[in-house]
Amino acid sequence: MASSDRDRTTVAAIKKLILDRRLTPGDPMPTESELMDTLDVSRSSVREAVRTLVALDILQVRHGTGTFVGGMSLRPLVEAMVFRGILSPGDSFDSLREVVEVRMGLDFALAPRVVESLSGTDGGQLHAYVAGMEASAARNERFLADDRAFHLDLAGRLDNRLYAELVAAFWDIHKSTAPSLGMVNRRDLAETAAAHGAMLRTAQAGDLDGYRAAITDHYAPLLRVLADQAQQQAS
Amino acid sequence: MASSDRDRTTVAAIKKLILDRRLTPGDPMPTESELMDTLDVSRSSVREAVRTLVALDILQVRHGTGTFVGGMSLRPLVEAMVFRGILSPGDSFDSLREVVEVRMGLDFALAPRVVESLSGTDGGQLHAYVAGMEASAARNERFLADDRAFHLDLAGRLDNRLYAELVAAFWDIHKSTAPSLGMVNRRDLAETAAAHGAMLRTAQAGDLDGYRAAITDHYAPLLRVLADQAQQQAS
Repeated sequence: MASSDRDRTTVAAIKKLILDRRLTPGDPMPTESELMDTLDVSRSSVREAVRTLVALDILQVRHGTGTFVGGMSLRPLVEAMVFRGILSPGDSFDSLREVVEVRMGLDFALAPRVVESLSGTDGGQLHAYVAGMEASAARNERFLADDRAFHLDLAGRLDNRLYAELVAAFWDIHKSTAPSLGMVNRRDLAETAAAHGAMLRTAQAGDLDGYRAAITDHYAPLLRVLADQAQQQAS
Repeated sequence: MASSDRDRTTVAAIKKLILDRRLTPGDPMPTESELMDTLDVSRSSVREAVRTLVALDILQVRHGTGTFVGGMSLRPLVEAMVFRGILSPGDSFDSLREVVEVRMGLDFALAPRVVESLSGTDGGQLHAYVAGMEASAARNERFLADDRAFHLDLAGRLDNRLYAELVAAFWDIHKSTAPSLGMVNRRDLAETAAAHGAMLRTAQAGDLDGYRAAITDHYAPLLRVLADQAQQQAS
């Protein structure tokens, strides 16, 4: 058996063991020796399969403690996509445009339920995030923490953990790719902060069309910069 | 240095090497020995880092040929999400509902541009896929290939490779999770095939509201089954 086939077999065997024993995220895994005995494979096969499964966040190694079932988060997606985004400098504006468009698509898809959830409410923590962004923009500073908290609050209003994870993952991919492109100026910061405020106000007013327009405004400064940069590159 | 720190360092060093040498997907990587010399790390460190990067599709090993820069596809996402979906039988209807809602969200976000792209056209290959689905449904057979081809054709109408990959990834996650739930009956098949036809017809007619309604109809049979199953489980 070629080593790649053997690896895949051991990976599959460990997954089957997790299922058969009804283990869930955070549960301890059998030791390396137990896995060798149970699956009848070598120590190196177990180690290699565990490494593959750790990379996928299906397993988690806590040093000094042992191996556990992982959170199966979207972290591997973020890692691969961030690397893809910075891989080809020539294509990076295009990669980032694709990421921003996906974020916008997720926001549009989320729009009806966000508006429904916020309509007629006091907006909770969202006002604090918007105020934080506006204050930062006035000082010509970026406002990553408030920005992320704002979008995660919105995404958390669906009864859909996967959707919220995707919103967080693409926010992370976006912000990990964007700094290298050096696209921050005072006008863009102020416009972006204001767009978050408009998203909140329109949602509270139950105004779905206004909310959709605010989403478009939210991404407009960035898409404008990306279009400019792509044009400069082409000329 | 703890082994996990050393691993992360080697993973980061290999990524940096790919960037510094401006390698792109499909390019050959240096040999294991060259990596050991260049990065000044042990053979086992190189092997472990390569395994992590292969799991993320950042590297690819072709046996008998060598190691290459990988496609950085969404395959790792699919693998982790499919496993997460089948991990907790108790939650699997809920996991699948989340996946189906994400697919629906992606389709809604895509809707304006799909309608714009298909309005007034002959619809190309899409008619053949719909005819294939209807023929299969009449024989009480599933129609996975035509179904996937239909959704990928729609997603390919955006100038956004990432979006098309996400549509494909969530199609794969959905179909790899759903069979275990045994939810196929004649009425659902016929209704789903017909909904694809309605999506095509409304898009060709430039009818965005009609297209959105067809998307809702497309997912209705499945969401109905999921709601029934969740209720049976609760009672």
